[in-house]
Amino acid sequence: MNLETTPLLTDLYELTMLQTYYEHGMTDEAVFELFMRRAPERGFFVSAGLDQALGWLENLVFGDEELEWMAGSGLFNAAFIERMRDFRFTGTVRAMPEGSLFFAEEPVLQIVAPLPEAQLIESRLMNIVHYQTLIASKAVRSRMAAGDVPVIDFGMRRAHGGEAGTWAARACYLAGFGATATCLGSARYNIPPTGTMAHAFILAHDDEATAFERFARSHPDNVVLLIDTYDVRRGAERVVEVAEKLAPDGIRIHGVRIDSGDLAANARMTRSILDAGGLTETRIIVSGGLDEYRIEALQRENAPIDGIGVGSNVDTSADAPFLDSAYKLHLYQDRPRGKHSAGKTDLPGRKQVFRHIEAGRMSGDVIGLADEDLPGSPLLETVMREGQRVGEGQAWDLESARLRLGDGLTQLAPDYRALREPDAYPVTLSPGLVALRDALARAL
Amino acid sequence: MNLETTPLLTDLYELTMLQTYYEHGMTDEAVFELFMRRAPERGFFVSAGLDQALGWLENLVFGDEELEWMAGSGLFNAAFIERMRDFRFTGTVRAMPEGSLFFAEEPVLQIVAPLPEAQLIESRLMNIVHYQTLIASKAVRSRMAAGDVPVIDFGMRRAHGGEAGTWAARACYLAGFGATATCLGSARYNIPPTGTMAHAFILAHDDEATAFERFARSHPDNVVLLIDTYDVRRGAERVVEVAEKLAPDGIRIHGVRIDSGDLAANARMTRSILDAGGLTETRIIVSGGLDEYRIEALQRENAPIDGIGVGSNVDTSADAPFLDSAYKLHLYQDRPRGKHSAGKTDLPGRKQVFRHIEAGRMSGDVIGLADEDLPGSPLLETVMREGQRVGEGQAWDLESARLRLGDGLTQLAPDYRALREPDAYPVTLSPGLVALRDALARAL
Repeated sequence: MNLETTPLLTDLYELTMLQTYYEHGMTDEAVFELFMRRAPERGFFVSAGLDQALGWLENLVFGDEELEWMAGSGLFNAAFIERMRDFRFTGTVRAMPEGSLFFAEEPVLQIVAPLPEAQLIESRLMNIVHYQTLIASKAVRSRMAAGDVPVIDFGMRRAHGGEAGTWAARACYLAGFGATATCLGSARYNIPPTGTMAHAFILAHDDEATAFERFARSHPDNVVLLIDTYDVRRGAERVVEVAEKLAPDGIRIHGVRIDSGDLAANARMTRSILDAGGLTETRIIVSGGLDEYRIEALQRENAPIDGIGVGSNVDTSADAPFLDSAYKLHLYQDRPRGKHSAGKTDLPGRKQVFRHIEAGRMSGDVIGLADEDLPGSPLLETVMREGQRVGEGQAWDLESARLRLGDGLTQLAPDYRALREPDAYPVTLSPGLVALRDALARAL
Repeated sequence: MNLETTPLLTDLYELTMLQTYYEHGMTDEAVFELFMRRAPERGFFVSAGLDQALGWLENLVFGDEELEWMAGSGLFNAAFIERMRDFRFTGTVRAMPEGSLFFAEEPVLQIVAPLPEAQLIESRLMNIVHYQTLIASKAVRSRMAAGDVPVIDFGMRRAHGGEAGTWAARACYLAGFGATATCLGSARYNIPPTGTMAHAFILAHDDEATAFERFARSHPDNVVLLIDTYDVRRGAERVVEVAEKLAPDGIRIHGVRIDSGDLAANARMTRSILDAGGLTETRIIVSGGLDEYRIEALQRENAPIDGIGVGSNVDTSADAPFLDSAYKLHLYQDRPRGKHSAGKTDLPGRKQVFRHIEAGRMSGDVIGLADEDLPGSPLLETVMREGQRVGEGQAWDLESARLRLGDGLTQLAPDYRALREPDAYPVTLSPGLVALRDALARAL
């Protein structure tokens, strides 16, 4: 079974529910919406992962292996298993295009499909959209903290498995990073690859200068040398020596990387050694345990830094490693539906998000019903119809998602995108939605 | 390119380093060791993921697609790309078998191979072993807190991508969980599958009782009903009513699930309603934002709970979403190697971990050199030789890893495995290793 495409990458209960739905002919149209309940650590979210979600929906087929597992499990009847052989996703998907800014409670993705189809896809759809949205929403914070300094994704080794490592490269690039170290992320999503050397490379040589020189001669177009294996000062001095040796052959040192110690102090010392040695063009790249807060501190110190590598903190969204994502049934057989317990009622009905822009700034969003006539720009677009991509869904383009996010950041006032204690962006409910919710609460 | 097998799921720098290694004939034997530097949130680690690591090493081949990407990147010369066509992993792997307890600084995996081979595998090897070890080390804490109550993995939807969701099922089962909701995890690793219904199932019906009855008749062998969609008390009462209706047909209610509210109070109320209705055998399963600390609190309250579902907190190891894992060159051309900066020196040389057991309890580990003659049981076993699985590596068995972990927990005194502020288990360095490290530090 192919990990990336198998419909068995799902929770068992999706399948047990489906058997019952089919037995009772519960195949009418359902509306499910995907949203994030709260954003305690984030002022806003960045939508990401929709292209992978649509790709997965397009290719959703139960093959012989899947059906054999279902039969062998003893949990399903033969009629249901046979029926799943013809299962396809035939529904409509509306979504905020990738790179959109969105907020808690706003549907970022909406599925309109026969109930069993809309139900089955829940687990993997969330698995896909949640992770990339999580990482884009984290990575954009490093990008904001770094300002004009390029940020690079180094995180694959401690990302949670290979799909996470690959998708993190994509989500970080979408969020404005300049490159990724992960080859597969580069190959699949056409992201600039980047990378230099590990400490092991230096250690495998009998001396640092030989390691530097060999690497430079082997990769003359991309000479970035790791200078902190033994001592940063000596490492920087050796770079100057090696540069003099290489100059007659037309090879120059493009950059150095510092991966430990006090990065700001080390960068300043390195800058002065390089400048004194005539290497004023040689860039300084730092890495090692960085996140948006440490990047902010480096920038506050005016550290002479030309590139920033981030890894584990971003690729695992370490301060908030999951979002309170939900995928909920809000309409079935044209009747609004919602969970109502402990005094709290879901927002029922098929919805739309209307964004208001004033003088170039986002001034507030309204969550309303899709059929309400409300001012503002609707954010959910139809990207799939009858199981086929349409509109924005057809020719997905990571570069335009990057641009969309860039535009969104410009439109979002600084107080709403502050790294610490951002102001709550105004999101209100339309009168129609409030009335529907209250009517549902009374009925239950 | 197949996500699970492609060698391009790596950091670019592994490839750039390899080109230089080959150009200079740096293909002698190297020893790299994988270890965790610190364990701030954990008293101990549980080794996991070695079977996937060995499987990946066995099948490591650069196919046409990989070589074309390398050529198209413009980052490598033609001779190197052609050479990679014949690349195979031919080395030796020593490792602690899965389910072993281990501690910070102890090598859990050791690679002995020609330098380029040992280098190339770094990123993906860490990606595989780090994540499963992270999750097994987190999940075992829920298992310990739950005592005799079975714990179930529900976390795939918010795990970081599909590989994480699938591996989390495996790592949790290794750690002692009873089942997983993730079908692919069940199918691949022969883990008991589990699952019932979502709130959407209840909401799609016009009333809760109909939903309960339909589900029970559809799945008479596994009737677990979700009772908190509207009101837990009414839900429990409806379960009793539905049970009476189903009894003549020989269908009984095996369990109920509560997913929100004060779980202990809800469980107590539900237990008394079920018992009063004669459903003394119906089990109560709770879920919703649980981790080891909340499970501990439920147990302290003596909540009448028969099953515990955990999800996001465990599958993302939310309180510590990555470990300080490292994969370092410690020997090349028979010379000890190690990074030495900021006054800290790596532990060089090829090592072994020796465990001391006294009166059935682990009394201390010694990290020594592999060729030292030291007392205690050596923990690193040879699992691969010349790129082929040998010994424990040949017939991996998740059940025996579970048993190994169970034995280990029995041998580890409670103070070392406390959930909060565990005592530091004694790990010391052998005289030979200390001498080697100090000699290396002096030489640098």
